[in-house]
Amino acid sequence: MADYVYGPGRTHLFVPGPVNIPDQVIRAMNRQNEDYRSPAVPALTKLLLEDVKKIFKTTTGTPFMIPTTGTGAWESALTNTLSPGDRVVSFLIGQFSLLWIDQQQRLGFDVDVVESEWGRGADLDALEAKLRADTLHTIKAIAIVHNETATGVTNNLATVRKLLDTYGHPALLLVDGVSSICALDFRMDEWGVDVALTGSQKALSLPTGLGILCASPKALEASKTAKSVRVFFDWKDYLKSYKIGNYWPYTPSIQLLYGLRTALDLIFEEGLENVIKRHTRLATATRLAVEAWGLKNCCQKEEWFSDTVTAVVVPPYIDSNDIVKHAWKRYNLSLGLGLNKVAGKVFRIGHLGNLNELQLMGCLSGVEMVLKDVGYPVKLGSGVAAAAAYLSNFTPLIPSRI
Amino acid sequence: MADYVYGPGRTHLFVPGPVNIPDQVIRAMNRQNEDYRSPAVPALTKLLLEDVKKIFKTTTGTPFMIPTTGTGAWESALTNTLSPGDRVVSFLIGQFSLLWIDQQQRLGFDVDVVESEWGRGADLDALEAKLRADTLHTIKAIAIVHNETATGVTNNLATVRKLLDTYGHPALLLVDGVSSICALDFRMDEWGVDVALTGSQKALSLPTGLGILCASPKALEASKTAKSVRVFFDWKDYLKSYKIGNYWPYTPSIQLLYGLRTALDLIFEEGLENVIKRHTRLATATRLAVEAWGLKNCCQKEEWFSDTVTAVVVPPYIDSNDIVKHAWKRYNLSLGLGLNKVAGKVFRIGHLGNLNELQLMGCLSGVEMVLKDVGYPVKLGSGVAAAAAYLSNFTPLIPSRI
Amino acid sequence: MADYVYGPGRTHLFVPGPVNIPDQVIRAMNRQNEDYRSPAVPALTKLLLEDVKKIFKTTTGTPFMIPTTGTGAWESALTNTLSPGDRVVSFLIGQFSLLWIDQQQRLGFDVDVVESEWGRGADLDALEAKLRADTLHTIKAIAIVHNETATGVTNNLATVRKLLDTYGHPALLLVDGVSSICALDFRMDEWGVDVALTGSQKALSLPTGLGILCASPKALEASKTAKSVRVFFDWKDYLKSYKIGNYWPYTPSIQLLYGLRTALDLIFEEGLENVIKRHTRLATATRLAVEAWGLKNCCQKEEWFSDTVTAVVVPPYIDSNDIVKHAWKRYNLSLGLGLNKVAGKVFRIGHLGNLNELQLMGCLSGVEMVLKDVGYPVKLGSGVAAAAAYLSNFTPLIPSRI
Amino acid sequence: MADYVYGPGRTHLFVPGPVNIPDQVIRAMNRQNEDYRSPAVPALTKLLLEDVKKIFKTTTGTPFMIPTTGTGAWESALTNTLSPGDRVVSFLIGQFSLLWIDQQQRLGFDVDVVESEWGRGADLDALEAKLRADTLHTIKAIAIVHNETATGVTNNLATVRKLLDTYGHPALLLVDGVSSICALDFRMDEWGVDVALTGSQKALSLPTGLGILCASPKALEASKTAKSVRVFFDWKDYLKSYKIGNYWPYTPSIQLLYGLRTALDLIFEEGLENVIKRHTRLATATRLAVEAWGLKNCCQKEEWFSDTVTAVVVPPYIDSNDIVKHAWKRYNLSLGLGLNKVAGKVFRIGHLGNLNELQLMGCLSGVEMVLKDVGYPVKLGSGVAAAAAYLSNFTPLIPSRI
Repeated sequence: MADYVYGPGRTHLFVPGPVNIPDQVIRAMNRQNEDYRSPAVPALTKLLLEDVKKIFKTTTGTPFMIPTTGTGAWESALTNTLSPGDRVVSFLIGQFSLLWIDQQQRLGFDVDVVESEWGRGADLDALEAKLRADTLHTIKAIAIVHNETATGVTNNLATVRKLLDTYGHPALLLVDGVSSICALDFRMDEWGVDVALTGSQKALSLPTGLGILCASPKALEASKTAKSVRVFFDWKDYLKSYKIGNYWPYTPSIQLLYGLRTALDLIFEEGLENVIKRHTRLATATRLAVEAWGLKNCCQKEEWFSDTVTAVVVPPYIDSNDIVKHAWKRYNLSLGLGLNKVAGKVFRIGHLGNLNELQLMGCLSGVEMVLKDVGYPVKLGSGVAAAAAYLSNFTPLIPSRI
Repeated sequence: MADYVYGPGRTHLFVPGPVNIPDQVIRAMNRQNEDYRSPAVPALTKLLLEDVKKIFKTTTGTPFMIPTTGTGAWESALTNTLSPGDRVVSFLIGQFSLLWIDQQQRLGFDVDVVESEWGRGADLDALEAKLRADTLHTIKAIAIVHNETATGVTNNLATVRKLLDTYGHPALLLVDGVSSICALDFRMDEWGVDVALTGSQKALSLPTGLGILCASPKALEASKTAKSVRVFFDWKDYLKSYKIGNYWPYTPSIQLLYGLRTALDLIFEEGLENVIKRHTRLATATRLAVEAWGLKNCCQKEEWFSDTVTAVVVPPYIDSNDIVKHAWKRYNLSLGLGLNKVAGKVFRIGHLGNLNELQLMGCLSGVEMVLKDVGYPVKLGSGVAAAAAYLSNFTPLIPSRI
Repeated sequence: MADYVYGPGRTHLFVPGPVNIPDQVIRAMNRQNEDYRSPAVPALTKLLLEDVKKIFKTTTGTPFMIPTTGTGAWESALTNTLSPGDRVVSFLIGQFSLLWIDQQQRLGFDVDVVESEWGRGADLDALEAKLRADTLHTIKAIAIVHNETATGVTNNLATVRKLLDTYGHPALLLVDGVSSICALDFRMDEWGVDVALTGSQKALSLPTGLGILCASPKALEASKTAKSVRVFFDWKDYLKSYKIGNYWPYTPSIQLLYGLRTALDLIFEEGLENVIKRHTRLATATRLAVEAWGLKNCCQKEEWFSDTVTAVVVPPYIDSNDIVKHAWKRYNLSLGLGLNKVAGKVFRIGHLGNLNELQLMGCLSGVEMVLKDVGYPVKLGSGVAAAAAYLSNFTPLIPSRI
Repeated sequence: MADYVYGPGRTHLFVPGPVNIPDQVIRAMNRQNEDYRSPAVPALTKLLLEDVKKIFKTTTGTPFMIPTTGTGAWESALTNTLSPGDRVVSFLIGQFSLLWIDQQQRLGFDVDVVESEWGRGADLDALEAKLRADTLHTIKAIAIVHNETATGVTNNLATVRKLLDTYGHPALLLVDGVSSICALDFRMDEWGVDVALTGSQKALSLPTGLGILCASPKALEASKTAKSVRVFFDWKDYLKSYKIGNYWPYTPSIQLLYGLRTALDLIFEEGLENVIKRHTRLATATRLAVEAWGLKNCCQKEEWFSDTVTAVVVPPYIDSNDIVKHAWKRYNLSLGLGLNKVAGKVFRIGHLGNLNELQLMGCLSGVEMVLKDVGYPVKLGSGVAAAAAYLSNFTPLIPSRI
């Protein structure tokens, strides 16, 4: 076998990305290449661009689907709207916001970093102070992750918008929605987000390969004067292709386009609001299990609890890396490592994307066995029982087709 | 969507067939048709025929892979070895042995039915009495299911062979191994089985479509004089094709051949003995969960416990059909119905084929929630805890490839 | 690679079955097993049974989809309608009618064989004579292949019906439509066919595994008294399942059901009449190429020309087996062998199922190169030119979706 | 059907990218996501990085597989090795070299454009003059396409290297091998190429999504001081990941990695030299067909003839766009459009990637029919005959496995 997966049965994938792909999407992607300059691919793309706006909850935004990853989407958001030296207020609350800040610095912006303890949300008091002080509007953009994947912390974007409005501040609001869009409640237009972005391998439940952005009219306007050097990530080339009607400045992945078509169909069939509710349910069940195990959520306050990933703090006598390694080797269970400051201290359960209750229960049961195996005095079944007690209160979010 | 499956996430398939197909096998079957008269398909078939004997543990048997189901394989086993009017001792212990007996009767044999209470194994005392009495050797064949899928009862074939030897009885031993071969310990040569058979959609973990038989030299000899009418199921046409070297008297499924190739590769890589041990572990875990729930195994004695399917008796105030329906509609969990005499009284958990621990834990947790939902006072987590306590004692049967 | 296919690029499959599967069907079949006793599979099956009647052009027939091959479908047609000893008039015009006659004889019928020279259609004058003479109605059935796959000869079923009507003969009309239904003009109700049958791997363009039959009310009535022994192939069990609403007496292939769903969707989208016209076009083009090469069609008269397969007679100094072997080894081109009486004398081009013009042109060009390679003085390009001149007269049968 | 493809049968894909994917690769990619931080993905990646060097024919180069397209690979090659203002000698010979030059200019380099008539190769005399004159070594890099996809022109890289050596010039040699590597003879080490790059959807015959580069030690050295702003495309992050052993600074496409594994296995099994020979054969056959049709190759001299794409000049009274549109709508045949200066004047036949003779013959026959349909007085069959006469001289490059 040319394969690296070991052992019988399914792999239990509970990292916060890449996530489980629906069978329907795998089927849709099981296909040959096509000429992307035929009439078919533009027709397909046109509809995708329309539909992709729905998951951002925008009607005024302009979408871009770039053959790249989340990191590339970040770069596209920044370089199209800002010029070297521009002041950006950016919140450091975990590894992924840290990486984005690193990118901002390397791209030559003047990054005004607002740091929080890992496990806490963005310090919006600090933001308020900065906005209040910035009467000259030197702040060109606020860059913030909606959901910090490393610590399982969700930031309150509505409040960010309210602060900007309160102070009548024109800064662009750039949001990393990589581990939120299509899973958490996200409202681009209502919250006045100027650029929002996600990656295909996250809540959209596709393979990696599409960085998807939406730009507000204000962001598009900014792109006309932004001086950051860019070509591959330049929105201008896309906008030109949109106008011509061939939709692609360079070759897209045919397979991902058909996959995205099916992924969106599934999301719309379930209902985006139901998808979000499902994430809340599975996340709540996970948190109840963590509590039942006597362990702590890395996220310090309920208001920041992430419904896409839970970072679980392990006792000091346990190395969380051992948990992740053992889960993979012994139970075919993929969990997320603790990263950087919380390396060895937390492991992460990703509960986003195409998942249902019993998959989660399998994962939780697996975590219990792993915890036991690494020497934590877990009561087997306790987390599963807590999660089950909660989940069995509900009826399915979508009725059976039969 | 042209699909009938509802809801997000994976389906949890725990019927005793068709079972979960490994991803590797799905990939191998994802292919075009081919000319079955090209040099490739015979070369592929030749190796498959050699390798398929290994899962029957036979070196002297002759394998037949017929494009049919288990019911067709039954018919092939009977019509190739027996003549109308032949006396067949057959054991009725559940729905599938009943169906086979029905077939035997309709095919015109003189079926000497030995019935047991459903939940008990074949009455081998009765067999002994019959063999002892049959000094004239009027019994031409013993027809027995190795594993009764309706009640989760495994018969003791070694004892059957011993009885035949003790009385020097020449009756053919015809074994339905549909829900046993490749999952339970089965030894065609050692146990002197004359015809053994299974279906591709059972422990081999393929789609339905191949009825696979092995015939002992004695069975082949019997086929030369057996007068039962047969054409499609006639071994003679296969034997002729084997001799010619084109291996197929009529068109096989190319996809299933490649699927079988991969299924066997996976089994040999895991090791057939490890596959069997894995089934024992998962079955034991399931039985511990049932016990923890305070429910009874339909199988009355440990010596008959099936390692491929567990039939769980529900309290009289619950209709087991409701459990199966609710599991499917609410949790995407497929359980087996109670059939015929035990309809409404039992539901079945199939734990055969391509499965691992955490899949089973998801299933067990689902059963707990379903039991709660239908009004059974289950302690949530109890079954999962019992199963987990047992399963976490083991190391994986095969080491990681990395 | 675990593969037996050699060389780069696509395989060119031009045997008269199994045929090229549409990518959409391969995608639809790329899936896990499902519980066939869930509500989904019966719902799916119910619609399939309704829709499958359309390709037989019957509203009064009852369809059966049996997990078997064409040979099994033959057996089901015969054993459900006839009793041992029944007189059957059967036409021997090539290898496949010969095999069916062999089956009829082995099943114990009194087969009245009407033989024609291979390359000619069924001798309907002989049929007329027999019907005229049979005032006592000893003939219980007429068994006839609609299309003889070995010689590329299509029989005239309308005339057969007219003869039966003319003589008011009640014999059942049993038709092997294996290489015709869904490709040639076939009209079950209009022609008063009592049992018609095909296999999934033929014009339906699926993998092997479904023998599909339709039985007229008269055939169903006959099945109530037919004494041929049968169980697996017994319609009774299917009819019982239809009534119960679970639709399957034993396990079907889930993958083939979804595949059939898609295959039918594609046929209905193209339009059955268009599918038939497409076959006529490709067949005519093939015959023009054969003529251009200076070779003879094995089928002796235009009225019998088959639109699904063309058997090409090679000059005596060439062994047609060499053509088939060389085509496969050198050009990845699968052609049909000459069988039995025409072995070595003809090779066959299958042009049925999911095909379009340029695929055929690739095949024809390949045949030209092979002919040259084996020493036949073919003018390269001549057949392709003749076929192209004909095919380029047409507009596509279905308009582009874009 | 959620599909945009119309009509029965296969699509005939003859654009110069994306190209036909081998079935084995489609199968390998038919899979779930995996955790890219598990031990499996790095192990897989490590081997891929080793093996990918072989198709560049480098032992000293460092490979980068970036989740992007060819355009992104260009950007990575430039920004990692050069600083804004650096003088780059770049050859404009068609649309793709033009696009690269546009990128170079937008990235802020001082591009010294050497233009040739479209249909001619790079003006190496001009290069020589520049090198001779550049005693101060103001030229930092030579940027050249190995194969211009718009005109079907292959540049002579060996001569470029010789000129650099002759003048002892230290300029970096940056090569776009997008439509050459893995199809044309390309020798990174021997020709002293400093950065070479390709895209997965070209001769590697995968879906779009990987931009693959190799950097010479000298290029790596240059990357340490290159001041171009870059993050997503920065080699530094990859090199860090290589050292850590997790191999990925951000999420790769799991599916493409397994696809690449299989694509490389197939190439190595066929033999890279055989792959190249196969391209030469199919290209030669194509050119013979063009000649037989009485049409001109856009490439003006045999020394520049491209073995991956042929641009065919149409007579002035025909719009080549009509040819491409008609081919797609009428025959399911995808040809390449004429671009920019040659728009309307040429159409292109891509003959790179996973193709064999009969596929090409189908295409050539299709082109003949299209030419006839648009009013060009083509002799049907003439091109096919010329190509066939040539191709049938050869034996297969790899022997059958059977």
